[in-house]
Amino acid sequence: MKNPDFIAVDWGSTAFRAWAMTLDGAVLEAKSTEDGLKSITNRDFEAVIRRSCGDWLSANPQVPIVLCGMVGSRTGWAEAPYVDCPVLPAGLAEQAIHMTMDGHRLAILPGACTRNAHGDLDVMRGEELQLLGLVQTAGLSDAVICIPGTHCKWARLHDGALAEFRTFVTGELFQLLRNQSLLGALADGDAYDAAAFRRGVTRGADYPLSHAVFAARANTLGGTLTPTALSSYLSGILIGAEIAAQTIPDGAEVVLLASGVLADRYAAALEFRGIPSRLIDAKDATRAGLLLAAQQLWFQDVPA
Amino acid sequence: MKNPDFIAVDWGSTAFRAWAMTLDGAVLEAKSTEDGLKSITNRDFEAVIRRSCGDWLSANPQVPIVLCGMVGSRTGWAEAPYVDCPVLPAGLAEQAIHMTMDGHRLAILPGACTRNAHGDLDVMRGEELQLLGLVQTAGLSDAVICIPGTHCKWARLHDGALAEFRTFVTGELFQLLRNQSLLGALADGDAYDAAAFRRGVTRGADYPLSHAVFAARANTLGGTLTPTALSSYLSGILIGAEIAAQTIPDGAEVVLLASGVLADRYAAALEFRGIPSRLIDAKDATRAGLLLAAQQLWFQDVPA
Repeated sequence: MKNPDFIAVDWGSTAFRAWAMTLDGAVLEAKSTEDGLKSITNRDFEAVIRRSCGDWLSANPQVPIVLCGMVGSRTGWAEAPYVDCPVLPAGLAEQAIHMTMDGHRLAILPGACTRNAHGDLDVMRGEELQLLGLVQTAGLSDAVICIPGTHCKWARLHDGALAEFRTFVTGELFQLLRNQSLLGALADGDAYDAAAFRRGVTRGADYPLSHAVFAARANTLGGTLTPTALSSYLSGILIGAEIAAQTIPDGAEVVLLASGVLADRYAAALEFRGIPSRLIDAKDATRAGLLLAAQQLWFQDVPA
Repeated sequence: MKNPDFIAVDWGSTAFRAWAMTLDGAVLEAKSTEDGLKSITNRDFEAVIRRSCGDWLSANPQVPIVLCGMVGSRTGWAEAPYVDCPVLPAGLAEQAIHMTMDGHRLAILPGACTRNAHGDLDVMRGEELQLLGLVQTAGLSDAVICIPGTHCKWARLHDGALAEFRTFVTGELFQLLRNQSLLGALADGDAYDAAAFRRGVTRGADYPLSHAVFAARANTLGGTLTPTALSSYLSGILIGAEIAAQTIPDGAEVVLLASGVLADRYAAALEFRGIPSRLIDAKDATRAGLLLAAQQLWFQDVPA
């Protein structure tokens, strides 16, 4: 293969993904393994990189490595700080943690943080690269972006920077309530029921969340909600409450950075609430963000 | 002992409590065991009553038995319906399930339900007797009452009847988030931290719930909340959100039917929100409600 300019790594809790890349964004080769941080018990992070990317490294003794994701968390390889909003690629590069490995330069990128009017902190680690990557790949300079998941992020891009964001533990609450609660014990399966989902979206917007959750239980006990529809209803409640909590400018479109079931659910809930949305697959966005960071880290003199 | 007029039983998931009572409300003898419904695997409910109350029954061949609690649920002895609000003792008696056991009359009391403007159901089973009992024992004819717990109930008494109520899964959410979540994993112990609790109460009122929960995590990761204060902060968020969702008439007092830690927390949160409250111990209220129901069931010709 052609010589890569740098190696980009997205290293999360459950997955390790690496790309041998050139500065024009081309991917020469990709590796993907299940060597997530949770699977590493001896703190031998270098061994994981050597196992997956050893051939790239030995063939390219000068190639640097840029990493993002939970690898930079307190329980990761080295704790990288959180950069305050507004965040640009240069800000991430400035506060990266620099190391060397087998003679290669290696940088672990920081996360992003924001502090609201009450002084409360919010944080992300990894999504900031997806968001900044989108500025490049989707030409989104000003946008409202939603990244559904365990901890769902609602972010605003302004002038090409990550301006602000808020996190909602919607996905985690769904898992807890579906799998561990008295309510979840009443549910029969997780088949999608569009009518029950929409009913849940309305209730999530209209009721306090911890009451809406009980209404799901009471309706099931009372026979006005079937056990097979309960999971969709609960999903609707949680997503509906989350959407109702957003201040979205009139006529603005929400960019959904999602795929699969979550993309479908959020798109349906937004449509039902009369909010336009557009779906963008998140797949390439992190890699685009890593390219921007690598340019700032090591290639500022190289024309893009 | 004197002859009881009736036997009152409060039979829940984890406890069995019985009282040999007279119509003037005197308790001649009491039994309390851990034979909750969860411990009964062979559906031999009669055996539990015979074991605890057999001496009362054999000495008083005519004495009737009135039961309340989860014994009347779908997974209990026999499913008693839910009576629509407004609920009075007579309404509960009217829809009781009647059986006989070893020649004794036996009645399983229904629960209570209410349907809101959206057509959504809410239900309780057991608390309605506490609430109606309070009308008698505490002279509360019109009141806003909060019964904290796994599924916290906010109820209104009007003209001595249970007029309406709403349930909040606050206690269950706390347990799930404290013991099973990514947030809870950051917590160190559950010691009470008054300042963190108050901060949580404010955030629970100001933020969407699923964002407030993440703020607790972010503040801990960012070092502005200590792991030892996290449990109190989370408790404050959930109780604060619940209180903020209530419409309490200006100057009205909230009657807290609670004891122990939950009584302390709710009283502190209400005081912090500027809402007057009064604490009443729930201990005798259920028994008072069972007396009212027994009078309606079997002793309407007997002067109170």
